[in-house]
Amino acid sequence: MQHYPKPLIQLIESLKTLPGIGTRSAERFAFHLLSRTEEEVEQVARSIAHCKKKIPLCQKCGTYTDQEDCLFCRDPNRNQSTLCIVAYPKDVFAIEQTQAFNGLYHVLGSLLSPMDGKGPETLQLPLLIARMGQFPIEEIIIAIDSTVEGDATALYLHQELNTTGVTLSRVAFGLPLGSAFEYVDPGTLASALHGRKHVHHSIK
Amino acid sequence: MQHYPKPLIQLIESLKTLPGIGTRSAERFAFHLLSRTEEEVEQVARSIAHCKKKIPLCQKCGTYTDQEDCLFCRDPNRNQSTLCIVAYPKDVFAIEQTQAFNGLYHVLGSLLSPMDGKGPETLQLPLLIARMGQFPIEEIIIAIDSTVEGDATALYLHQELNTTGVTLSRVAFGLPLGSAFEYVDPGTLASALHGRKHVHHSIK
Repeated sequence: MQHYPKPLIQLIESLKTLPGIGTRSAERFAFHLLSRTEEEVEQVARSIAHCKKKIPLCQKCGTYTDQEDCLFCRDPNRNQSTLCIVAYPKDVFAIEQTQAFNGLYHVLGSLLSPMDGKGPETLQLPLLIARMGQFPIEEIIIAIDSTVEGDATALYLHQELNTTGVTLSRVAFGLPLGSAFEYVDPGTLASALHGRKHVHHSIK
Repeated sequence: MQHYPKPLIQLIESLKTLPGIGTRSAERFAFHLLSRTEEEVEQVARSIAHCKKKIPLCQKCGTYTDQEDCLFCRDPNRNQSTLCIVAYPKDVFAIEQTQAFNGLYHVLGSLLSPMDGKGPETLQLPLLIARMGQFPIEEIIIAIDSTVEGDATALYLHQELNTTGVTLSRVAFGLPLGSAFEYVDPGTLASALHGRKHVHHSIK
């Protein structure tokens, strides 16, 4: 990069902040942008520039929206007796893609991580408790990764919500569909064994 | 993508125009941008927005610069008797990285491709001829890919520059260093055979 003009180095450094992008890919992106028309480049820059303003968080559940409420909070046809708690706004869309859930969402926006100064006050729980009063919620599904932070957060949620009388569940951990035994790590395999089901139950 | 807010879909579509980036990577970029601070996102957008204005083409050789002349045209220590012709501005930096060339550059900005309406008038040849009068150029190295367009352009350059009395050469085509025979395509292998050198010549 030593011979590049300074603004080109800045452009490459900016593009390198994208996830999974190293110097080579960032150079490729930069040269590609420079070879496009002024208008095309402006269009890319514009869509990035105002993304946070144009895509705010839903004031009710905390996922991405382009209005005050999101598509899911607005929809009267969704099942208002189940609520799914996820860590981040994008997780909502991952769950929607499965078409296996039709209830309400609640986005924590963070996971407990005392080392990073993220305590329970970062989890938007008062908002969740307030919402629980508005809907006839019967089941809360905790859809959070099994990481150190994820497990700590799930445990904390369990403690906080256990007294509400609502059924609490957590998504199942086990073998990914289509995976081969030999490639699955021991932790996942142990989860799959602990979470085993009687065969007649799992046949729908 | 059906559940995403419209501005998010636009952001993902914009990011998909980057080379080698499909929907999944563009989604990852978009969610990453949304999770960063307003200021960080603005910084990425700004570096993209004005890149074409901040990184213009050198008025002499046609590569990227941030001034009127580029680093290479400005440098009085470069060998002004050899000139290297490349297709695109970025190729100059690829050659600089080799540290195997210390002469002047000339960027064509295009390759001959009659099917795409790119004729000889797109090659900036008058500019090259004018520059040849300003420097004591003895050798011109044509550093252009061996593609249909690249070969056609090299042939055309050869015809146009043959009468100038300058030594014309083209970069060697052959086996990439460190490559395995079994993975090299027959065309490359044929080039390597045709371009063979006597062993005592290749020992420095």
